[in-house]
Amino acid sequence: IKLWERQVVEVAKKAKKIGKEDPRTIIHSLKVAVALTLVSLFYYYQPLYDNFGVNAIWAVLTVVVVFEFSVGATLGKGFNRMLATLLAGALAIGGHHFATLFGERGEPILISTFVFIAAAITTFVRFFPLMKARYDYGLIIFILTFSLVSVSAYRDDGVVDIARSRLSTIIIGSCIAIFVCIFIFPVWIGEDLHNLVAANMEKLGNSLQGFEGEYFQIAGNEQSREYDRSFLHMYKNVLTTKSNEENMANLARWEPCHGPFRFRHPWGQYIKVGTLNRQCAYKIEALNSFLYSEMQTPVEIKIKIQESCTNICSECDKALQELAAAIKKMVRSSSANPHIAASKSVAESLKSLLRTELTGEDDVDLIEKVPVAAVALLLIDIVKCIENIEEAVHELAS
Amino acid sequence: IKLWERQVVEVAKKAKKIGKEDPRTIIHSLKVAVALTLVSLFYYYQPLYDNFGVNAIWAVLTVVVVFEFSVGATLGKGFNRMLATLLAGALAIGGHHFATLFGERGEPILISTFVFIAAAITTFVRFFPLMKARYDYGLIIFILTFSLVSVSAYRDDGVVDIARSRLSTIIIGSCIAIFVCIFIFPVWIGEDLHNLVAANMEKLGNSLQGFEGEYFQIAGNEQSREYDRSFLHMYKNVLTTKSNEENMANLARWEPCHGPFRFRHPWGQYIKVGTLNRQCAYKIEALNSFLYSEMQTPVEIKIKIQESCTNICSECDKALQELAAAIKKMVRSSSANPHIAASKSVAESLKSLLRTELTGEDDVDLIEKVPVAAVALLLIDIVKCIENIEEAVHELAS
Repeated sequence: IKLWERQVVEVAKKAKKIGKEDPRTIIHSLKVAVALTLVSLFYYYQPLYDNFGVNAIWAVLTVVVVFEFSVGATLGKGFNRMLATLLAGALAIGGHHFATLFGERGEPILISTFVFIAAAITTFVRFFPLMKARYDYGLIIFILTFSLVSVSAYRDDGVVDIARSRLSTIIIGSCIAIFVCIFIFPVWIGEDLHNLVAANMEKLGNSLQGFEGEYFQIAGNEQSREYDRSFLHMYKNVLTTKSNEENMANLARWEPCHGPFRFRHPWGQYIKVGTLNRQCAYKIEALNSFLYSEMQTPVEIKIKIQESCTNICSECDKALQELAAAIKKMVRSSSANPHIAASKSVAESLKSLLRTELTGEDDVDLIEKVPVAAVALLLIDIVKCIENIEEAVHELAS
Repeated sequence: IKLWERQVVEVAKKAKKIGKEDPRTIIHSLKVAVALTLVSLFYYYQPLYDNFGVNAIWAVLTVVVVFEFSVGATLGKGFNRMLATLLAGALAIGGHHFATLFGERGEPILISTFVFIAAAITTFVRFFPLMKARYDYGLIIFILTFSLVSVSAYRDDGVVDIARSRLSTIIIGSCIAIFVCIFIFPVWIGEDLHNLVAANMEKLGNSLQGFEGEYFQIAGNEQSREYDRSFLHMYKNVLTTKSNEENMANLARWEPCHGPFRFRHPWGQYIKVGTLNRQCAYKIEALNSFLYSEMQTPVEIKIKIQESCTNICSECDKALQELAAAIKKMVRSSSANPHIAASKSVAESLKSLLRTELTGEDDVDLIEKVPVAAVALLLIDIVKCIENIEEAVHELAS
């Protein structure tokens, strides 16, 4: 009994954590419940039942299946479902009428053949990458409705009635889901993508700062260096967001104009910026492999280029934060330019510093100078990455 | 008209390409069609219709929705759907009996309240990561069946009949889908995951070989170096497979024992190996950034450590190929050991080579020696990565 109690408490804690992290989850749960209650009221309401009979239950089913967390996903599913039902219903009616020409014995054979062919072709089309990304749900619903209407029609002569009532109930259900999703605290997935890309930039900047703090801490004054160690690994989230970003961009395409976003907002450009972010994250991953490697450069060498490296990191960080802010505000901002220019000039001076300082005569083996020099070269590479990101961000704003 | 014709030809070409790349897509399409035709035969068959009436159509619907490409996905969806229907049906019957105690006016209010609460809680539970990964579909079906049975029961007093016929038809549909999926050319997602992880290892090895060829080609004899340039970028696929691998491991857990895989095969271990593969891929990405960077080491320096680097790359490649082969054959093979030992000893000698050869007096700036030294350090790091991979692979085999 005690164990059971502890588990309940644990689940409750987890639920609280999820709700706190993103309160939209709680709102979404209530929204689904509202939409479902709304559609069941339709069912209780006499005239609707008189019209559609037991088929009215399709409206309930549609609400449950179509209602997704974001507006984009809900619209995508809703439109897919409505269009596929319309198309499949029409085709099934046509097929039925054609099949009846062949008498009572030929009919089930012909209809089975139609269902077989439609199912095989549509299932195969689902493997086309573009169809998979945008119309996967519609294709399933197409098979579903086509076989449903075709097969039902065999028992019930009112094939047109079946198709019509299925279409109407699905339209009612989809519209209720879309309506509730859009007009009660909507969650726009385009906005989420927008914020994700900006947040990833901030994370990259923070990780650069964190790396600088960690790598040069031994060289610097302990107490003057205060930084958040959790910053160091923030870039790791950026490494694996590719499929997430692509999925979000696909769903965002369904969303109507909202807030500062137009209907045909260039969502594909976010994928581009995301790819550049990821390239920068790979470089930071490479930087981090120098943090704890067994081969370390002695402090007296590190200190020679510490200032330049620190400058590059902080200018790159500032540039990334400014770019993230520009994305968030959706302005074509040039406030990142001075930081990028500064980091470029520091990179140039770092290059000559590497030539002069590290080549100087001392009793340190060349091999021991390599790690810090490699770090410097990577930082110079990162400046280039950030230039590319800036260009892509500007393109996004224009 | 010409344009239209050209588009049809293009689509046909694309379809042919997809079918050629993975013939299982064609087989899957036919399997879906067979299952659907099979279930509609049940519908035509009189006794079944007499038993379930229009509800028999649920079986058709279930086949379409449950039938997925892999056995794991189909079993997961099928079990989720059956269990959720059973549970939700039972609860809905209980709720209905409780609600009827409150008379005709209280009943719809109480039922609506139940539906509201069930929908809100279940939707929220879908946000729990573990539930999302394994039981997401079941949770949707739970809401669906609960509201369907509750709401239908208001119009039709046979609430038990509704729940029973829904459950039976869903069991029939799921079983047909599972049966066809398993017994006609099954696609095991666990096997796919297994092959994917092994193939990724091969790709990493090939990319190392490709890098070596590309980086040192200027130094070597042109005609003696023949290698496939496409090898160079194979590692890029490995960078972004994380979510794919996790998804596959989740689905593989549903699969029964098949071929060399037991029911509780350690699928999680594949995710571990995959993560280590990815760490190796990040290093190769870092290597590749030295290929075309503006700072290049002169050939006369490169040539000094070329042999060691070439050896490391080829030994690492061989080790990775052996490990991939060991995974594929599912044996605890030690055939990778000599290659790993060789690459470790070459790595040690490369370290001392860096100390002696590169520090020698010559008129090359230190800064120009850094890139090739950094490449060497990265290669030494990669040897360590591969040791980790080997350990994880051995764990997998035991």
